[in-house]
Amino acid sequence: MRNRNKPWADDFLKENNHILAEEPFSNKGNWQQSFSKKQPLHLEIGAGKGQFIAGMAEKFPEVNFLGIERVKTVMVGAVKKVKTAEVENVVLVNEDAKDLRDMFGTDEIDHIYLNFSDPWPKKKHHKRRLTHETFLEQYRDVLKSDGRITLKTDNRSLFEYSLSSFSKFGMTLEDVTLDLHELEDESNVMTEYEQKFSAKGQPIYRCEVINRI
Amino acid sequence: MRNRNKPWADDFLKENNHILAEEPFSNKGNWQQSFSKKQPLHLEIGAGKGQFIAGMAEKFPEVNFLGIERVKTVMVGAVKKVKTAEVENVVLVNEDAKDLRDMFGTDEIDHIYLNFSDPWPKKKHHKRRLTHETFLEQYRDVLKSDGRITLKTDNRSLFEYSLSSFSKFGMTLEDVTLDLHELEDESNVMTEYEQKFSAKGQPIYRCEVINRI
Repeated sequence: MRNRNKPWADDFLKENNHILAEEPFSNKGNWQQSFSKKQPLHLEIGAGKGQFIAGMAEKFPEVNFLGIERVKTVMVGAVKKVKTAEVENVVLVNEDAKDLRDMFGTDEIDHIYLNFSDPWPKKKHHKRRLTHETFLEQYRDVLKSDGRITLKTDNRSLFEYSLSSFSKFGMTLEDVTLDLHELEDESNVMTEYEQKFSAKGQPIYRCEVINRI
Repeated sequence: MRNRNKPWADDFLKENNHILAEEPFSNKGNWQQSFSKKQPLHLEIGAGKGQFIAGMAEKFPEVNFLGIERVKTVMVGAVKKVKTAEVENVVLVNEDAKDLRDMFGTDEIDHIYLNFSDPWPKKKHHKRRLTHETFLEQYRDVLKSDGRITLKTDNRSLFEYSLSSFSKFGMTLEDVTLDLHELEDESNVMTEYEQKFSAKGQPIYRCEVINRI
């Protein structure tokens, strides 16, 4: 999905620029200034239509949430969700975050969420998976020492790969769940995709990883 | 299952004592002398009726296999399997291996197999799981530095626990498989239990762990 020639999306985002970070790279190291309160900073990579980040922001007002979404027309949905939720602890970024270190300072982030990321099934594309070591290097740098990564996916191959990738990289698997919804974890906020998918009775995998200790 | 008053089992094992290590604790550090050739030493903890270890020994004649089984009447089955397979690279031990360090020297073992170990489902019994850190401490000591542990189980809770336990202990998850038989890994040798269970279409979990590197 390309973003060219979508003037309605441009217009909508411009009208709602209080929710958006317009020059995200210039915020590097100073993200707390984009929020009304200085609080732990949690980042969702691939925020999609925003159900997760809006739900988390409502549930955890003591946290500042930052959502990155590459696709402008999808981002429109996220802005709507955040507006409807009337939360003040969310900032959205419409960028393709190729290297997080261009956008975040060392130790700037407390928690990263990877929700239903592209599984890139072909072996030759595994280096594009968001849990490939080239991405883990970025996470390690921008996360605090005791910072965490939470990964959720319905894709078995991506999950198997990710567990091993985290471990080989030296991160610690604090918790692994092979059927999240059987667990009935009330703190879990579902993404749009997760809601649809788990309604069909398919298992959702989740792991929580500690950066380093 | 207690072993008292099973004279037929005693008699059978005595007749086949060339397959059994009769004083296993005195072999500590010198297990290679119990085999006809000096080769890498692989250990199965809980060898059961022996289908796995006999099958592995046939498939990998370049490896020495040692199987520990606590229950004497079950061990009888393993001895029969090894006899039928006519392999010379298996030694069996009828002991409750409370601390492997009493039976093995430092770095004496190349590979440990934990096949369908007791899942001990109750939280208060988790310390009895063979992947609890008190056992991992033993494995770390008796395994070579680049030694490996392979765990197979059909029990989701045990598997989730084990992945996290290995990782927290500092061992590396080299490979994780959430549905072993879909993988069609031809090198996989099935246990009796695995064969029965997977025929019902239930997934088998497997992980391979490196001691330390």
